Amino acid sequence: MTTTQLTNQIRKKQTFLCIGLDVDLDKIPQHLLKEEDPIFSFNKSIIDATHHLCVAYKPNTAFYEAYGIKGWKSLEKTINYLNSKYPDIFTIADAKRGDIGNTSSMYAKAFFDDLGFDSVTVAPYMGRDSIEPFLTFEDKYTILLALTSNKGAFDFQTKNLGRHELYKDVIETSKSWVNSQNLMYVVGATKAEYLRDIRKIIPDSFLLVPGVGAQGGNLQDVCRYGLNDQIGLLINSSRGIIYASNNIDFSEVAAKKALELQQQMAKILQL
Amino acid sequence: MTTTQLTNQIRKKQTFLCIGLDVDLDKIPQHLLKEEDPIFSFNKSIIDATHHLCVAYKPNTAFYEAYGIKGWKSLEKTINYLNSKYPDIFTIADAKRGDIGNTSSMYAKAFFDDLGFDSVTVAPYMGRDSIEPFLTFEDKYTILLALTSNKGAFDFQTKNLGRHELYKDVIETSKSWVNSQNLMYVVGATKAEYLRDIRKIIPDSFLLVPGVGAQGGNLQDVCRYGLNDQIGLLINSSRGIIYASNNIDFSEVAAKKALELQQQMAKILQL
Repeated sequence: MTTTQLTNQIRKKQTFLCIGLDVDLDKIPQHLLKEEDPIFSFNKSIIDATHHLCVAYKPNTAFYEAYGIKGWKSLEKTINYLNSKYPDIFTIADAKRGDIGNTSSMYAKAFFDDLGFDSVTVAPYMGRDSIEPFLTFEDKYTILLALTSNKGAFDFQTKNLGRHELYKDVIETSKSWVNSQNLMYVVGATKAEYLRDIRKIIPDSFLLVPGVGAQGGNLQDVCRYGLNDQIGLLINSSRGIIYASNNIDFSEVAAKKALELQQQMAKILQL
Repeated sequence: MTTTQLTNQIRKKQTFLCIGLDVDLDKIPQHLLKEEDPIFSFNKSIIDATHHLCVAYKPNTAFYEAYGIKGWKSLEKTINYLNSKYPDIFTIADAKRGDIGNTSSMYAKAFFDDLGFDSVTVAPYMGRDSIEPFLTFEDKYTILLALTSNKGAFDFQTKNLGRHELYKDVIETSKSWVNSQNLMYVVGATKAEYLRDIRKIIPDSFLLVPGVGAQGGNLQDVCRYGLNDQIGLLINSSRGIIYASNNIDFSEVAAKKALELQQQMAKILQL
């Protein structure tokens, strides 16, 4: 899926919502535990109930790895379900990978070729040759952690390198990498005002913004600074939607929460 | 396994070699492809031939993930084999993980509890709350990327923050984290002279040093600057050992390569 197609989907569905599929067996409705694959059953219900209200789904791989081989099977079934039933959905493997060159190639192959995700999140600490192997895949996107939404973002990301902070240096530097047009960036919504500065460096790139909702970000602020001509934003919400209810009606309540966000987004898109 | 036990093993076996199990089906002896689980068969042969010459094994998870669920099964069989047959071996999941707090807990659970590794490598970019969940596990070690051995290390890690470079800031800052006694550090051997500075900040910690051999580091230099009273070094070699031959005699040739390194290490330990 290309970014042009993604922008078209956003305009058509009037939403730039991404739903995080961070499935924890302790938090899902307990009646699902009887199912053969409770994680996939949960995801399938959430997806069927919300796919018209969002343009992307983002499973965080940690939640699947925590259940070992069973968890990987659930992840595989989830991405296969998305790709076969909802091919217009943009899919993000939130894996935060990154390793030396030949090893990053293995990760890229795993997420893009074998699992068939449209994109994967990666960590920048190891620099250019840890990311470029991901960028060689056509019509696949590599989402670089720039400024994250957690407290620890202030430990290193906002440290000053003289001319500017580390996260700006990461963004600036990444523009020189081969196939950098295949980059997107993670920018936490807890610091919406930073988006203005970031947009000066990368006016055209898509930004994946976690932290609206549970982590405290404000949708209006993010949009004021982050929107561009191609929309250029994916706003993620995970727990606020998928765990809105843990009763038998969980998918309907999730859809209600997603609808609230979609309606706010539609209003913003019409301004 | 505690670091005291690890130091004891090093003294007893006269080696601080770690062997990287980065198994690529294109590089292993082709006769193994007939086996039911070629990756595990390869690992088992390498481990049986070299376990007396090293103190640690380090599978890089990327190589296993690249083969999907089959790969994860091979990883699980490998760690189970090590834990049951060679319990005195220190095991490292080279996964370079790191995510926000509750998500990092899922990764920690996956690698420490479910798979049963002694340690896991993590990336520092997301700061304190992305690492502390790993540090809460008793007698488990979290190996923080500080200065890596790839070219891209110079993109961000060696950037100057004023008082010192980012990698030194990462090391210095990490000392204040809760349970920081459970930290070890990745320090690439291509910059052996940097080890002297690092030892001033963390004189007592164990350092995992990749890049001796294939990536160009020099064993003597690394030891001159890196050894401490408790040894404090694990030197990793992957391709130089496991792919020394891809004939039927691959495990014997691997053992010969490991023996060469072990003999050099024994000499250094006796100085």
